[in-house]
Amino acid sequence: MIAEFDLIREYLLPGGLTAGTDNEGQWLGCDDDAAVLKVRPGHRLAVSVDTSVADTHFPSSAPAHAIGHRALAVALSDLAAMGATPRWCFMALTLDQRQWSDRHHDLPAWLGAFARGFHDLNQQVGSVLAGGDVTTGPLAISVTVMGELPEGQAIGRQGARPGDLIAITGYPGEAAAGLAAWQHGERDPAHSLLARYLYPRPRLAAGQALRGLVSAGIDVSDGLLADLGHLRAASEVGAELDLQALPLSSSLLDAVGQDQASRLALGGGDDYELLVTLSPSQRDAAMAALRPLGLSLTVIGHCLSTPGLAGVPPDMKAGWQHFAGEAP
Amino acid sequence: MIAEFDLIREYLLPGGLTAGTDNEGQWLGCDDDAAVLKVRPGHRLAVSVDTSVADTHFPSSAPAHAIGHRALAVALSDLAAMGATPRWCFMALTLDQRQWSDRHHDLPAWLGAFARGFHDLNQQVGSVLAGGDVTTGPLAISVTVMGELPEGQAIGRQGARPGDLIAITGYPGEAAAGLAAWQHGERDPAHSLLARYLYPRPRLAAGQALRGLVSAGIDVSDGLLADLGHLRAASEVGAELDLQALPLSSSLLDAVGQDQASRLALGGGDDYELLVTLSPSQRDAAMAALRPLGLSLTVIGHCLSTPGLAGVPPDMKAGWQHFAGEAP
Repeated sequence: MIAEFDLIREYLLPGGLTAGTDNEGQWLGCDDDAAVLKVRPGHRLAVSVDTSVADTHFPSSAPAHAIGHRALAVALSDLAAMGATPRWCFMALTLDQRQWSDRHHDLPAWLGAFARGFHDLNQQVGSVLAGGDVTTGPLAISVTVMGELPEGQAIGRQGARPGDLIAITGYPGEAAAGLAAWQHGERDPAHSLLARYLYPRPRLAAGQALRGLVSAGIDVSDGLLADLGHLRAASEVGAELDLQALPLSSSLLDAVGQDQASRLALGGGDDYELLVTLSPSQRDAAMAALRPLGLSLTVIGHCLSTPGLAGVPPDMKAGWQHFAGEAP
Repeated sequence: MIAEFDLIREYLLPGGLTAGTDNEGQWLGCDDDAAVLKVRPGHRLAVSVDTSVADTHFPSSAPAHAIGHRALAVALSDLAAMGATPRWCFMALTLDQRQWSDRHHDLPAWLGAFARGFHDLNQQVGSVLAGGDVTTGPLAISVTVMGELPEGQAIGRQGARPGDLIAITGYPGEAAAGLAAWQHGERDPAHSLLARYLYPRPRLAAGQALRGLVSAGIDVSDGLLADLGHLRAASEVGAELDLQALPLSSSLLDAVGQDQASRLALGGGDDYELLVTLSPSQRDAAMAALRPLGLSLTVIGHCLSTPGLAGVPPDMKAGWQHFAGEAP
């Protein structure tokens, strides 16, 4: 068995954190009871926590590198939706070393790949793992992410007004098609749709670029319609969607055809694109803000003063379930 | 089944947080992707995360109110060790509703009591639950606690110097005796030793009062000797203990006798007292600082320049295991 402290030090804090500081001289927590962090003046702290449970939120047989990436990505996506800049994260890892070793025979290799997936994404987005806890139990990863926001600039869910446009970044539905491919035996992590499921990209730069331009925002984790529902409820507005305007990627269309592509785009979860509302007068500015990021922003409808959802046939409104166990 | 959002709102955020603000006007996260928090000027943020897994860290048959209290208390204890003032916490709750209902028949009652235990302790210490995540899986509670520290005043583990006194708050060993009582069938939560195990009190006021008076500190979760080992390693000092000086409570002595009381005080975990080092010149000031709290501070040894632990017979150094499953 590997002692908890060694696990944290060797696998989870590989980025030179043993010196006890991050690159801004913050004092981190590996050798102490808590990390001690400094939030920059004029900034607020955005905090979110997300738990990924093996065989509930991801297949436990997925590549360890992808599991590490994904656990952090889904948490960071909440910061993206708020427009925050990620700075620190904390990981609570629950892992049954004995069970894991029985199944995989090589726990150190698994942990090394898992930690690299987590660490690689942290490096890409400029945040650091500042502390953690390792406990024995069924595999689950709970990640608390912390980011900075200039005061008064958070993107919330409750700012949408009737007449605002509804827009989405990127191409929804691909992750759901990727999960379906996994469940049908696809195992190549370079498969473009599967990669979208295994390696979601939190839209952090987009969220930051859209601060001040959008009236409300949310990340699409449960599916476009479900998350639009959360946004509508918080903002007390209705919505009308134009299904012809849904941005469907050619790889999604090639894989599943037009009808199923629309269904996956509306109901499929795990895309982690941003769904935003904005005044029509901000439309051009918002698109221009995302252009340098190589990310599209597509208007797919508008907000109504009357509650409810128009423009979507009832049979398209059926919900979507996250991954929940291997196919029988 | 209770939807995740309803679970969070109804059970975990019972303190009027639906208004979206805490009592200092902070914007909290129930309706948003992340909570947005403001750290006071001149302060740093202390952050720690602790996971409590059912039947690994606590008996799943323990009272739900105690499980809620305990999950928060063990996390807060890390802030106490740093001298921080708790302000916010985040809970990642993993719970298998179906399994739980089968066993307990009344999930809402269980959740209500669990949330009250968590909430009552939050109220007592002045922090608030600012966000959370609920997922399906075996029962585990991961709590991220966040507290404020005046800049430059954190208590670390690495400040102990040869010649410093070693002192401990309160009466160690009682929680371990309480756990033993539980394992022998004691179920009255008012039983004084069992209460010490089920309802640990994080020594937050003591940690704050000792800032500036102690050279290093740590909370005793793994046992006095084990945690002294962590402090010695971080500070690169040795230690000599005077076992005659160990503060043993009369209820512990009455329950298990002198020899076993010493063993539990040295090796028993789960006490969550503070173990500190301090210059002899600060001894009186430190004791005076804790007097208004009704908490004792007992000198039990001193630090050495040579590594190792003196004054403890080898057979007393045997480790202690946290609760790990019901007795057969």
